[in-house]
Order: sequence, then structure tokens, then C-alpha cells
Amino acid sequence: MPPTITAFERSPDRGRGLARDMRVRWALEEVGQPYDVRLVSFDALKQAGHLARNPFGQIPTWEEDGLVLFESGAIVLHIAELHAGLLPADADARSRAIAWMFAAVATLDPPIMDRSMCAFFERGQPWYAQRLQALDGEVRKRLGELSRHLGGAEWLDGGFSAGDLMIVHVLLRLRTSGLMDEFPNLGAYVARGEARPAYRRAFEAQRAVFEAAGP
Amino acid sequence: MPPTITAFERSPDRGRGLARDMRVRWALEEVGQPYDVRLVSFDALKQAGHLARNPFGQIPTWEEDGLVLFESGAIVLHIAELHAGLLPADADARSRAIAWMFAAVATLDPPIMDRSMCAFFERGQPWYAQRLQALDGEVRKRLGELSRHLGGAEWLDGGFSAGDLMIVHVLLRLRTSGLMDEFPNLGAYVARGEARPAYRRAFEAQRAVFEAAGP
Repeated sequence: MPPTITAFERSPDRGRGLARDMRVRWALEEVGQPYDVRLVSFDALKQAGHLARNPFGQIPTWEEDGLVLFESGAIVLHIAELHAGLLPADADARSRAIAWMFAAVATLDPPIMDRSMCAFFERGQPWYAQRLQALDGEVRKRLGELSRHLGGAEWLDGGFSAGDLMIVHVLLRLRTSGLMDEFPNLGAYVARGEARPAYRRAFEAQRAVFEAAGP
Repeated sequence: MPPTITAFERSPDRGRGLARDMRVRWALEEVGQPYDVRLVSFDALKQAGHLARNPFGQIPTWEEDGLVLFESGAIVLHIAELHAGLLPADADARSRAIAWMFAAVATLDPPIMDRSMCAFFERGQPWYAQRLQALDGEVRKRLGELSRHLGGAEWLDGGFSAGDLMIVHVLLRLRTSGLMDEFPNLGAYVARGEARPAYRRAFEAQRAVFEAAGP
């Protein structure tokens, strides 16, 4: 039995690959592991069936042979531990790749999500311009730090790893913000991630779900 | 040579154990691993020496035999992989404990930090009252979900693990918010964490740094 992941029945990003099931789909495509998808409506996220998979009512989740997991970072790490190709064999390099996975969800994702949510939900508020500017500053600071670290390298630490996979996916949310344009090496880095055949297959699979859901 | 971690020379929490080096100190105390501490000033965080340890200029970091790591979650996981006592031996239970570690930093910490930063830094802003109320709502939602999952259990999934360590530490930041009072089982859970001898030793060690720094 292949593993089963959950994804939004109708993704709020309209099939642009920003929902967090993309990270798991991409990891599974990188290692060549087929998978099944259980689509979940927004209403069902907060119902007992899904809360048994994820107490916080989020996607993605993972079900395989009685093991149930949640948190995209934990699921990608689990896949990387089951299959070769996403973490270096060298123990130190492996630990550093995992550090980048944590940096993606703990240090980069929060300001980027805050900025994205503000741009989407707070447009009508009297403080919108001031707050968006402050949040842009937070994101710009992190992008500058990441850009300096990456320099002219292809990936963050040697070959492509689950750390790059997670970081690239977090950065993709900034596409429409204009902020990535200030850091050309990060733009090229994200483009390298998107150009990977495994990314393309994962992207098309999530896009097909959105298109099948209809208008 | 014992590992070396970094911590704030003068912690902004005034020795209350909220800085993220506490997670690493606590994990090291749980497994009985001695460690050295390199204290870092706020100015030094953004200088080349520290940025070589952590590109984002944060604490804690980890140095041991040429391996340099950052991100508290990654460092605690590294410690848990080197020593018995922080992750279950069973593979599925181990993966679930790691999922809780990711949930701590990716799902619980961001709204709790947002709420804490808003309460501290945005008091004078025009959006303060409305935004604090919204953030309280976000935090309350996550606490409610965690409380329902925990129920009457002692720890989140069987015995104490690195997942509990990370979640308890994230929750400790809410002590002065009053929000924890609404969820007595979470209050008792955090108190169980704080009562562990390893937590006490770690707390006293970080507190001694604050007291040594003087007024």
C-alpha cells in the first residue's frame, strides 16, 4: 500500500503550488515513491476524522501502515529517512541539511506567512500601509541573510537536499510580492528548484486537483 | 571536548528561561551531556563571527568537532540522535515525536511569538487593541486544539520526549498572558515539564548568566 497524504479539496492558492502538501509531493517525487491523496474540505479539517490525523486541523498529513504523521517538515524528514536522495550520507552534512529544514519552517516561513496574510486580509484596515511596510522589512532582512549565505552557490550546502526543498517552497510564496527581485541569486535558486523534474511532477499533480474541483 | 552552544550575553527575558538556548540546555541536561557556553552580545549577533555559525544571526548554535549547527529544533534533534532518552526506540513513535518538535516551532511558536512581540512592541500603534485581540484568538485556537489532544495524558504521546520538551518551552512564553489559565490541563503539563530535574538545572544555568551580567 502506498502512503496516503492529505491535501485541500480546493486549495486557497488556486493551484499555484503554495499549499504545504507540495513539500511532501515534491519529496515523494524526488525519491520515486508513489502515493495516494485524500482530499479534505475546509469544513472537514476541523472534524474528528481529520483531527485524529492532525490535532491542529492542517494539511498535509501522512498515513502508512498504521503510522500517522503531521507537519510538512516532519513528513519530508520521514520520507528522507526512508529513501536515499534527500539527505547526505555524511552524518555532519545530514545534520546541517536538517538544520535548514527547521530554518525553513521556524525562521523563514513565519515572517513570509505574516506578510502574505497581511497583504491578503488587512487591505481594508487603516494601518495597512504601515504594517505591510514593517512586514516587508522583516522579510527583506531574512532574504538578505539567506542571499549572503547562498552567494553564488547552487544549493545551500553542497548538493540538493531536503533543506533546499523546504527553503525553496517557503520562498515561492513571495513570487507576487516583488521582494525576491531584490535578491537575484535567490530568484535563480528558486528557479533551479522549480526546474527539477520532481518539482514539475508534483506541481502538475496538485494543479490537476484544483482544476478537477471546477469553478 | 564538550559541545559549545551560544546564548545571549544579556537575555531580553531577564533570566526567565524564554530564550531558545533553554531548549538546548534542557536537552543536554536530560541526557547528561556537559557543555560550554559562548555568550554573544546583541551587536555581535550580526557580525561575521556569529553569522558563520548562524546565517540568520540568532542563538542558539552548536559547535562540536567541526560540526556547526543552528536552529534550536535541529540542535535538540541532533542531541536526541546522539544520546538515548529524548526519542522513543520504536521507529513510528520516534517519527511522531519529531512531528511534535516541528509542530512546536512551525505551528505553535509563530502565533505565540507574534502575540508576545505585539504586546511588547506595538502598544503605541493604532492597530494595537484590535491586533492583540486577533492574536489572542489565534493563540487560543491552538491552545484549545493542543488541550483537546492532550486530554488527561501526562505527555503528548507516551513517555516524555523531545517533542514535549519543545512544546513545553514554547508554551512557557505565555505565562504572563493569562491565556494558559483557560486550559488547566496545559498548565499542569507545563508544570510537569518545569518540575523535571533537567529543566531545573538548565533554568538555573541560564539564570546565572543573567545575574552575572549585572544591572
